[in-house]
Amino acid sequence: MRGGALSTDLYELTMMAGYHAAGLMAPATFELYVRNLPPNRAYLVAAGLEQALQYLEHVRFTKEDIEYLRHVPAFSRVRDEFFDDYLPAFRFSGEVWAVEEGTPVFPPEPLLRVTAPLPEAQLAETALLAHVAFQTSVASRAARMVDVAAGRTVVEFGARRAHGIEAGVLAARAAFLAGCHSTSNVEAGRRFDIPVSGTMAHSWVTAFPDERTAFRAFADVFGDRTVILLDTYDTLAAARTVAASGLRPSAVRLDSGDVVMLSKQVRGILDAAGLHETDIFVSGDLDEWRIAEIVAAGAPVGGFGVGAALSTSSDAPSLGAIYKLVEIERSGSPVPIAKLSPGKQTHPGRKQVWRTFHGGTAGEDVIGLADESRPGGRELLTRVMVRGTRARAPRPLAELRDRCRSWLAELPGAVRRIDVPASYPVRLSAALQALIEETSRTASRGG
Amino acid sequence: MRGGALSTDLYELTMMAGYHAAGLMAPATFELYVRNLPPNRAYLVAAGLEQALQYLEHVRFTKEDIEYLRHVPAFSRVRDEFFDDYLPAFRFSGEVWAVEEGTPVFPPEPLLRVTAPLPEAQLAETALLAHVAFQTSVASRAARMVDVAAGRTVVEFGARRAHGIEAGVLAARAAFLAGCHSTSNVEAGRRFDIPVSGTMAHSWVTAFPDERTAFRAFADVFGDRTVILLDTYDTLAAARTVAASGLRPSAVRLDSGDVVMLSKQVRGILDAAGLHETDIFVSGDLDEWRIAEIVAAGAPVGGFGVGAALSTSSDAPSLGAIYKLVEIERSGSPVPIAKLSPGKQTHPGRKQVWRTFHGGTAGEDVIGLADESRPGGRELLTRVMVRGTRARAPRPLAELRDRCRSWLAELPGAVRRIDVPASYPVRLSAALQALIEETSRTASRGG
Repeated sequence: MRGGALSTDLYELTMMAGYHAAGLMAPATFELYVRNLPPNRAYLVAAGLEQALQYLEHVRFTKEDIEYLRHVPAFSRVRDEFFDDYLPAFRFSGEVWAVEEGTPVFPPEPLLRVTAPLPEAQLAETALLAHVAFQTSVASRAARMVDVAAGRTVVEFGARRAHGIEAGVLAARAAFLAGCHSTSNVEAGRRFDIPVSGTMAHSWVTAFPDERTAFRAFADVFGDRTVILLDTYDTLAAARTVAASGLRPSAVRLDSGDVVMLSKQVRGILDAAGLHETDIFVSGDLDEWRIAEIVAAGAPVGGFGVGAALSTSSDAPSLGAIYKLVEIERSGSPVPIAKLSPGKQTHPGRKQVWRTFHGGTAGEDVIGLADESRPGGRELLTRVMVRGTRARAPRPLAELRDRCRSWLAELPGAVRRIDVPASYPVRLSAALQALIEETSRTASRGG
Repeated sequence: MRGGALSTDLYELTMMAGYHAAGLMAPATFELYVRNLPPNRAYLVAAGLEQALQYLEHVRFTKEDIEYLRHVPAFSRVRDEFFDDYLPAFRFSGEVWAVEEGTPVFPPEPLLRVTAPLPEAQLAETALLAHVAFQTSVASRAARMVDVAAGRTVVEFGARRAHGIEAGVLAARAAFLAGCHSTSNVEAGRRFDIPVSGTMAHSWVTAFPDERTAFRAFADVFGDRTVILLDTYDTLAAARTVAASGLRPSAVRLDSGDVVMLSKQVRGILDAAGLHETDIFVSGDLDEWRIAEIVAAGAPVGGFGVGAALSTSSDAPSLGAIYKLVEIERSGSPVPIAKLSPGKQTHPGRKQVWRTFHGGTAGEDVIGLADESRPGGRELLTRVMVRGTRARAPRPLAELRDRCRSWLAELPGAVRRIDVPASYPVRLSAALQALIEETSRTASRGG
């Protein structure tokens, strides 16, 4: 990916060239937020900030990038100075405020606020949206699954369903952040220090002449701390094979069929053989609804492996996040900015979000202007980057995960329900409302 | 990503260690296929083979990979020989047959068939699925949009909605393969030689004191071959601003509102100013249904920019592709393999797909055994890799795209309809059916 600067939409680059030519280099502020909740979500879990900050720290135009751009037809009239002077020296030099990863958030609260010379802030749009929206989608779904699993293990199994290799690694990160216990994705395990776990595939079982041989061969290599897959031919027959084998696997896995009924029958077979310590692990097209059903049915299941529903956030694969100019400096003074497109209006001004609590439970969020003083609420956006440099070292992912779970615990229980959740109150401060009205009255409508 | 070998599920690696320990190093054959069509699809467009083959050519275990694995608890009992001898020398040495990228395919036809020593073929599962399933999802959706656009331009705009940066680049590739005309993704443009295109963002318009100034400033830098965005404040007012400006943009863009009505009104304003050559380009939450509506309403629109619907295949973000062991060599003889899990049975044996034609139109596909002779049909799987090396140079993407469009043109029109499409007949050959019956009778059910 080299300097990564070409991983963006062409118009970010043409606009940069345009701002440069027009001399629009003064600071501008953009905010990244989600306009509406996607289907089946009553809250979102902010994620992807770490990758967004890495992007801003490292984005550069390499010589090869610049040579490529010089020959893109859209740039044919752009002056050499842009290619010879501006792009080679380009660094992101701005300030970033952001909601900490793992924080529950509600549209239209800003997740990220960038203040930088206009071309720098503009360039970042595509990459920041891709990083933050995707991981936020996955984390938001993972939180629901961990909730309904009610203490049972939830393992992220979605690498093969993810939108390419790298998406799988990032999905594993977001899922762990929001409370999943481990991932099957080894690269994610290494890169982010996430516990990795795995079982046995059908191919292992079918590679041997029979199940008894397959199960024994696995234990010969890995010992008793293995997970044996039962459903390759006939789940109950396989459970009886395990029971009669003398093996003591840590778990068995069910991947098909009526897992509620099968888990009860398998539990009986294992218990009768004294395998009380052998857990039952379920996988196969799981999501929060299915996990809730299995739990509600009293199935003796200790853990769930979830694939596509996590790694693609399958019921809401796109978040519709946006990154909008909210303030620009003109003649040295900040000017609040909004667009008025029908159904797509934006709110002007630099914002902050305050969360208020009643007896430890979050009661209301207020989106206001960053310079309002609102004593008493928790400020959700903090300064994470100053002059292109991080304001503090990244926290370990496991720490972010602990904080995420404690922040989720602050939400009203009714907001965390997966079916017909209550909506959480978010309002705009009086000062912000006044600015919105003023800006829409005075906005330039062409002319 | 180093050698990329850790970008996989943990169980692929533990099974490799297990096969190695158990001496199961003989050739095995896996097939990658989709079990059922996802919602809203009557056919799929195979894609992602190029990235899959690159993975197989380059996959290696680096020293760092091996050190990491040595300390994963699951490997604690694995013998040193696996880490010291087997992994450092690991190369994919197998044979691959595949359906050419851009080929219309129908479940459960194999898209890819891998024959290699069992641990090599096993390792590849996760990465091959991630590459092929994702790009196939995007290409399958793109083909529908290009069809209903009926000759109008379709531009892939989905980078910001994609599941991370790399997913956006791969989505742009798949969308172009299936017929999109260009992409906004600059990195994809460079890497895959796809035409890049872009317009103007709302931030450009709002960064200037008024629209007239913003439009003129853009033309000052880029000349007349620009696309001017009209909906920041009021679409018709902006169109009148363009008409009165003396600018001659190549197109104007509508991104919100009732685009059918607005496009007709904007056309009138442009025509009255003699701007007959200025096209109207539409974006904003488009998919194949919305494009079809706009076209059916006779809106004077020359092109569409599509985001999330392409880059996340939003209505079917996961394909449920699988990679299953279908044959293994035991004592020097090939043994066909199937699993019998309820609802998830697999078909044994190495397969080929034959497509038969009536008067230039595809009439039926037959999935049979690779060694059947079926004169007259087109064989969809060809050999693309031999002993870990490509059997031929990769074709340019533009050539694959042309072939894709001509192959799509061979499908019956009713199969390509977006609403209530006809289903295309796919049957299993008598020889394959006989093998399925025999294998399920004799499959080892534990014991």
